[in-house]
Amino acid sequence: MITDPALRQALEAALESGDLVRGTTSPNPPVGAAILSAEGELVGVGGTQPPGGPHAEVIALRAAGGRARGGTAVVTLEPCNHTGRTGPCSQALIDAGIARVFFVHPDPNDAAAGGADHLRAHGVEATRIDAHVPALRPWLAAVRLGRPHVTLKFAQTLDGFTAALDGTSRWITGEVARRRVHEDRRRRDAIVVGTGTALADNPSLTARTADGSLYPEQPRRVVIGSREIPADAAPNLHRLGFERHPEISAALAALWEAGARDVLVEGGARLASGFLAAGYVDAVQAYVAPTLLGAGHGVLAGAVGETLADAARFTLESVTRLGDDVLYEMTRKEVH
Amino acid sequence: MITDPALRQALEAALESGDLVRGTTSPNPPVGAAILSAEGELVGVGGTQPPGGPHAEVIALRAAGGRARGGTAVVTLEPCNHTGRTGPCSQALIDAGIARVFFVHPDPNDAAAGGADHLRAHGVEATRIDAHVPALRPWLAAVRLGRPHVTLKFAQTLDGFTAALDGTSRWITGEVARRRVHEDRRRRDAIVVGTGTALADNPSLTARTADGSLYPEQPRRVVIGSREIPADAAPNLHRLGFERHPEISAALAALWEAGARDVLVEGGARLASGFLAAGYVDAVQAYVAPTLLGAGHGVLAGAVGETLADAARFTLESVTRLGDDVLYEMTRKEVH
Repeated sequence: MITDPALRQALEAALESGDLVRGTTSPNPPVGAAILSAEGELVGVGGTQPPGGPHAEVIALRAAGGRARGGTAVVTLEPCNHTGRTGPCSQALIDAGIARVFFVHPDPNDAAAGGADHLRAHGVEATRIDAHVPALRPWLAAVRLGRPHVTLKFAQTLDGFTAALDGTSRWITGEVARRRVHEDRRRRDAIVVGTGTALADNPSLTARTADGSLYPEQPRRVVIGSREIPADAAPNLHRLGFERHPEISAALAALWEAGARDVLVEGGARLASGFLAAGYVDAVQAYVAPTLLGAGHGVLAGAVGETLADAARFTLESVTRLGDDVLYEMTRKEVH
Repeated sequence: MITDPALRQALEAALESGDLVRGTTSPNPPVGAAILSAEGELVGVGGTQPPGGPHAEVIALRAAGGRARGGTAVVTLEPCNHTGRTGPCSQALIDAGIARVFFVHPDPNDAAAGGADHLRAHGVEATRIDAHVPALRPWLAAVRLGRPHVTLKFAQTLDGFTAALDGTSRWITGEVARRRVHEDRRRRDAIVVGTGTALADNPSLTARTADGSLYPEQPRRVVIGSREIPADAAPNLHRLGFERHPEISAALAALWEAGARDVLVEGGARLASGFLAAGYVDAVQAYVAPTLLGAGHGVLAGAVGETLADAARFTLESVTRLGDDVLYEMTRKEVH
């Protein structure tokens, strides 16, 4: 645990910078970096730029300029040792005269790993530190799993219904929760729905601000299922553009190839059950309204098992009040 | 709002004392009182004793003794002006030489009200203050409604199932949540289940400590429904004793007559739906586990309505993490 105030400030700045670039960096990780001068002053922060652009360390070093010499870098991920579209960050830190590097997660990519060793070989202290980096969790899981990290999202009544018997579902949750959904969507690489939802709801699958305008970052729009999506049944998707895949595994493989690492599955129930049965649900976001319906359309399309011991069990990560509703976030036990 | 530190300390002591006697005072309210000496020292606290015993103010005055003279009383409910099994508390405060009384809720009982006026007529300052008194909410609602306050309680998976398809329901929630249920039960006047639950689960409906022993306070055990409960089908209830009522309204009337003001309805789904349809659900306690079942037995036995606009809407009061589970507490919009 970091106790030094300057280091703590730098870590917080690095975490924030990484969080700000979520949704814009894939297939690269949304990393954040901060530079302290030799005197302990915060002189540069940065987040990874879109693919082909500079990594977090380089942005932070540019801001710091000559004040980086003899200073300290704090990075959420081990500096890369890989020359891809950009040069290796570990070398950039050495060239800037950085004396010490603190990083949270080691780089899990074979091609990019070894940055800490490279730093040490050039006389730079490189130390791993312990911190919670939410922005990197989906990317780290995706690299480990070799497929995009999947978050299953739904809005439900407290008693588990996503729509009433007559199909009405607008709006189960309130304005604050709906705004949060859009803020979350912009941080994802793709929004995925089933053909049933695409045909029934004419969704846009966009990330919109409170006034309805589009955020600059937009996730891919993906529909999974074997049914065709005619333009007159889903005019919004046809106007905005979307990709369709016949089934889940093929969709995840195609999304991975296309660079997506962090995808949000928004239903319906059949697609949700399909992802769960295939073992692809890494995280769950349930927006729960303080209402009871008694009957209606459920979150899933069928039983996970006949008996309680067969229930799909998750780890509760957080409960957050959003106006009158509650966002309930859980993760798969094995994955995180 | 109270800003004076001594008064604030007295209010907190009064709130705590009232909370401690919940479940032991009905049909009287679980009131708490605290006395500050003329010098502002906390010299007595007390909670209402079981029916026939002294009220909160009298307990607090006894502790304070002569130090109450010229002092201040803080009470969660307006001191009563009624000679029942005990003398009026307003007179006891006057007799003890109290100079100022602060109370939170006015007494809603015609028979007992007028305490503040009586105090003022005898030269004692009596001022209403604003504070949140959770211990009194069920009692205040019961007096207003002329029937016991009803809390509907259930344990469910996140997707709204209280049991799996094969009927298994032990245990949906974990140890921490189950212990909380027992702590809550001891503060209620009655635990109510339907005949179906009584026959299927052989419940005890007792309030037990973590080691399984009984709390000194035990709520009434009540079964509602037209089916007989044979001793061999529900040996626990037959051993401990219980009362049975054929239907909900009759049960609430009988419980009210017997002095119950705060009852907990623990299911099953048919009884829960009956209470909800009759407009009797004043509060909801949902213990939600981080699991998904997909199908099983729901919280309610049927649709509240066909369309989303017909959903039963509540006010979210709190969400509390209990180990791996979450306690959602909601109240009826109109009642509180």
